[in-house]
Amino acid sequence: MKKLKVTVWNEFIHERKNEGSKKLYPAGMHKVIADGISKLGGMEVQTATLDEPEHGLTETAVQNTDVLVWWGHRAHGEVKDEIVERVKKRVLEGMGLIVLHSGHYSKIFKSLMGTNCSLKWREAAEKERLWNLEPSHPITEGIGEYIELPNTEMYGERFDIPTPDELIFVSWFEGGEVFRSGCTWRRGHGKVFYFRPGHETYPIFYNSQVIRVIWNACKWAAPQIIMADKCPNISNSLEKLSPKNVDFGKAGIQQ
Amino acid sequence: MKKLKVTVWNEFIHERKNEGSKKLYPAGMHKVIADGISKLGGMEVQTATLDEPEHGLTETAVQNTDVLVWWGHRAHGEVKDEIVERVKKRVLEGMGLIVLHSGHYSKIFKSLMGTNCSLKWREAAEKERLWNLEPSHPITEGIGEYIELPNTEMYGERFDIPTPDELIFVSWFEGGEVFRSGCTWRRGHGKVFYFRPGHETYPIFYNSQVIRVIWNACKWAAPQIIMADKCPNISNSLEKLSPKNVDFGKAGIQQ
Amino acid sequence: MKKLKVTVWNEFIHERKNEGSKKLYPAGMHKVIADGISKLGGMEVQTATLDEPEHGLTETAVQNTDVLVWWGHRAHGEVKDEIVERVKKRVLEGMGLIVLHSGHYSKIFKSLMGTNCSLKWREAAEKERLWNLEPSHPITEGIGEYIELPNTEMYGERFDIPTPDELIFVSWFEGGEVFRSGCTWRRGHGKVFYFRPGHETYPIFYNSQVIRVIWNACKWAAPQIIMADKCPNISNSLEKLSPKNVDFGKAGIQQ
Amino acid sequence: MKKLKVTVWNEFIHERKNEGSKKLYPAGMHKVIADGISKLGGMEVQTATLDEPEHGLTETAVQNTDVLVWWGHRAHGEVKDEIVERVKKRVLEGMGLIVLHSGHYSKIFKSLMGTNCSLKWREAAEKERLWNLEPSHPITEGIGEYIELPNTEMYGERFDIPTPDELIFVSWFEGGEVFRSGCTWRRGHGKVFYFRPGHETYPIFYNSQVIRVIWNACKWAAPQIIMADKCPNISNSLEKLSPKNVDFGKAGIQQ
Repeated sequence: MKKLKVTVWNEFIHERKNEGSKKLYPAGMHKVIADGISKLGGMEVQTATLDEPEHGLTETAVQNTDVLVWWGHRAHGEVKDEIVERVKKRVLEGMGLIVLHSGHYSKIFKSLMGTNCSLKWREAAEKERLWNLEPSHPITEGIGEYIELPNTEMYGERFDIPTPDELIFVSWFEGGEVFRSGCTWRRGHGKVFYFRPGHETYPIFYNSQVIRVIWNACKWAAPQIIMADKCPNISNSLEKLSPKNVDFGKAGIQQ
Repeated sequence: MKKLKVTVWNEFIHERKNEGSKKLYPAGMHKVIADGISKLGGMEVQTATLDEPEHGLTETAVQNTDVLVWWGHRAHGEVKDEIVERVKKRVLEGMGLIVLHSGHYSKIFKSLMGTNCSLKWREAAEKERLWNLEPSHPITEGIGEYIELPNTEMYGERFDIPTPDELIFVSWFEGGEVFRSGCTWRRGHGKVFYFRPGHETYPIFYNSQVIRVIWNACKWAAPQIIMADKCPNISNSLEKLSPKNVDFGKAGIQQ
Repeated sequence: MKKLKVTVWNEFIHERKNEGSKKLYPAGMHKVIADGISKLGGMEVQTATLDEPEHGLTETAVQNTDVLVWWGHRAHGEVKDEIVERVKKRVLEGMGLIVLHSGHYSKIFKSLMGTNCSLKWREAAEKERLWNLEPSHPITEGIGEYIELPNTEMYGERFDIPTPDELIFVSWFEGGEVFRSGCTWRRGHGKVFYFRPGHETYPIFYNSQVIRVIWNACKWAAPQIIMADKCPNISNSLEKLSPKNVDFGKAGIQQ
Repeated sequence: MKKLKVTVWNEFIHERKNEGSKKLYPAGMHKVIADGISKLGGMEVQTATLDEPEHGLTETAVQNTDVLVWWGHRAHGEVKDEIVERVKKRVLEGMGLIVLHSGHYSKIFKSLMGTNCSLKWREAAEKERLWNLEPSHPITEGIGEYIELPNTEMYGERFDIPTPDELIFVSWFEGGEVFRSGCTWRRGHGKVFYFRPGHETYPIFYNSQVIRVIWNACKWAAPQIIMADKCPNISNSLEKLSPKNVDFGKAGIQQ
């Protein structure tokens, strides 16, 4: 069976500038995520980062990606619009997209959602419990009733997103909030999954259940087909039209 | 009761450059739409066009609009990005948006949908019948089983949109195609309705059922509230947090 | 303006047999709910209970109800199937239905959902906080960011329901669970709202925010139209059919 | 790889009583469907009919079915309620269900939808074109832009169903109607697909595209897990509850 081609993208800034982050993820979060899902098998995993030429997302790289995993936070604004457009075009053609944690505010996610994607937040290392609402969904395979994370940044509702096609996880937070932590949407021919866990100074991506969900999601988001967009003029009708004894001014953009 | 403030926006180009269009809509389609919904009552209707300063959509104008109706076709690219952003911000805050016909390819609609919004099309003056799938929806009040339009431009599936929250109309075309002709979505606090009918050289906006649907839709899309976007840091939790005997590196964007 | 006709139905058993419940709701929960929403205005509120003839839901009573509010718990099985069918028929024709708390397991709710409607539960008087996910929805008018209830029975996910059309409230529980506490669905021409709060020995229905949500929901669920079901044979087509030079055996149920 | 266990159920009455139907489907429609999908591979296909003991759907048979395909028409009322309950229970546990054509009015489909499932209809051997709205969905794999059927019974909107999770096909009919011909819903842990084509005297089930869609749908509806329903009392909370210095009357069903 052909291996799924996954690219893990990370802005890779915190891990080079913040001491805690550097200690936790010396080679970057993308490396830990990529290693984690590689070990679970069936995938060829690449990584790409902001500082590479074209952010590592050249036309060739994108064409060779079945599913793209996205982590960004402090440098959303530095991602070039043309690269965002390229990724968006590919998602609409069929590429899968997994957006993690602070990626909720990335250009690519906001552009696919059409909303602000804002939320409440607090950094207090509090406990989170992600309840599995859909135990029969491929994304939760092998995950039990919930995932418990001892120390997380809190994200709280209202999360400004379009109603998800499927709501997979809802989080409970020690401090009193709730959050839609796992959501799916179809956009064009591509599948999008937002997954809340992940942070630059909490060891979230060393959690095996978190990695398992990302791995499951990559398999779920694998393209069924890749299909280019078009908006064709179908001048010949399938059915014969009745004679039109009316004289409309010529329409269209010519005068 | 306070009147609903509706603004009908039109690029207003065909009606000044195309003879057939000029004859049909000498003062522009926006004038016919505005007059039509005004007569049905309960609304203060303004119009705005592309060639006005800021396309007639100044900050004040947008603040004074409950529901915006949008018609555009050949000049989508000429609508300034900053005006699109202003309108989008206001929709997400709660303003209603009714997108007509070729507006499917407008910047504002594509930006709120996150997809290509492409479709099949044919200009052959063919018959269309819009079937009313939701006779108990406010948008179809007073409309019977279907609307029949003798001469229309055909739009056919696949229409590249996110799954509508509600599918109100589906069109049958003489030439053999079908189309999701009336669709609703919530985006932020605003309601969006796409309605297919409307064309620069067919007399669609003189059809009383079409006008009735637009009027109904304006009432349906009236803002429940207007609420500014925010992404607040909630530093104090509602519930007391347990002591955190861990030392995470300081997170966030400072080093 | 015509007043909305609301009927509050209660099995009315706990309040006559359980001391705590009797003390809290001496005239029954239906009385407290009915009084509460009456005071907010615009409604003619009736009540009906299990022990009345036809459970108080005669054909006439149902015909004279715009929105039915339902509370049941220990006697779901005693509600006659023919009455459930009558109520269901009326919901599908356009009557609104608000299902409260333990009504999740009522025949009428299960029958409209098509699923088990099961959940986790615990009676430990714990704190619940219902987060308002849709501040621009009519059901949450006048409700702030959340409703806090100091002592409640816990309901936890997975709640076995079809994906709600709209998810209005999500609950946080002191004991660590979450729950989809406010959900809407369209069924036929009727609107259904499930709202979690309410219990026979906690004073939930004396909470003004809970009553406000029920009142809001009644207004939201008001019928747009009442339309009888039919499955008509349309022997004459709208479009002329081409000659059929084939000989199919006569179909249908006759031999 | 383990083969998918599919059971094709047919009431098998027309094909024994109606001359045209007998000639077209001498061994019953179930036989033609079963042979068709068997040839496409990867499945162990059984059949079951109304006149078998327990309609061929014994507890063992249902336990040994991954996906059930359903065709019924004139004898919906003869299907025993206890068998319907057994099938429904299994769908909610995870079994897939494909409902064909006149099965829209079957007890099992109506029970899972919660609505009337009524529609318009006409038997005039007219042309139908099913437009493929989701070319990237597994159910439409190998199907092009549309399926054309030269002679069909017409089904027209309004189809009284809950909003589908996914709308896969929309039909165009020669006589002027449209119909949502391919719809998916999740119910419990099971997936349901309604597919319009199929009739007792038109040779629909000899059409290779129709068979391909049924085969695709069986693969799509394969259970991810099988999970029994429960509604558990979780007496111990995950989080420690604060002391409750209140005295509520004992709740629950005891007095």
